[in-house]
Amino acid sequence: MPDEKTMKDAMQAYIDRFNQADAAAIADLYADDATVEDPVGSPVKHGKTEIAAFYKMAVATGARLELAAPIRASHGDSAAMAFNVRLNMPEGKAHIQVIDVMTFTEDGKFASMRAFWGKSDMVMTP
Amino acid sequence: MPDEKTMKDAMQAYIDRFNQADAAAIADLYADDATVEDPVGSPVKHGKTEIAAFYKMAVATGARLELAAPIRASHGDSAAMAFNVRLNMPEGKAHIQVIDVMTFTEDGKFASMRAFWGKSDMVMTP
Repeated sequence: MPDEKTMKDAMQAYIDRFNQADAAAIADLYADDATVEDPVGSPVKHGKTEIAAFYKMAVATGARLELAAPIRASHGDSAAMAFNVRLNMPEGKAHIQVIDVMTFTEDGKFASMRAFWGKSDMVMTP
Repeated sequence: MPDEKTMKDAMQAYIDRFNQADAAAIADLYADDATVEDPVGSPVKHGKTEIAAFYKMAVATGARLELAAPIRASHGDSAAMAFNVRLNMPEGKAHIQVIDVMTFTEDGKFASMRAFWGKSDMVMTP
């Protein structure tokens, strides 16, 4: 099981690489057979090819991620973080309020990611 | 599946009832056969009797919960929230940085709760 610092550093790297719009570098944080469920309740993406394609599309929107609170670890193989996805919409600035939960492989890669956000979490930024 | 507002209202009620130190009222938010894993990686508590006992002990500490960011819903039967557990320790004020993820039954009760926090999430409050 990776230690807490290893998990938190990988979560922070996820934020940083997303904000560098580097989809390949984000995909590198995942294990080869990882899964992504974003949002929770939608079809699950399986494996690095699907995951890399997902992030290529995501970073192309110009979205930026901003932590809403410090990253949390756990006493197991999981970590979680609350953040906002900042978007420039034709109507103005908007954001999506998200919590991501990652599980980890022994060697500190993401085994799974689940993103908790609903329609009510997409809001115009005041 | 409960709607997003139902799930978010139940999460807020959890915070409020905890801060009223009302362990029985917190347990009422759970389904009879619910599970609690707090922290993630520790043994799972099963059923209302174990869950009520857990909260009786938790509220007896005098801890108070404070949301760190708005509660998140999902496109499924789950919601998540980031909060701080405020504690008065002999050494001064401290807090635990937590993210709770709940799944819900059809009738809007908690089917499961998992609390993500590690040793590194227990910090002295500046």
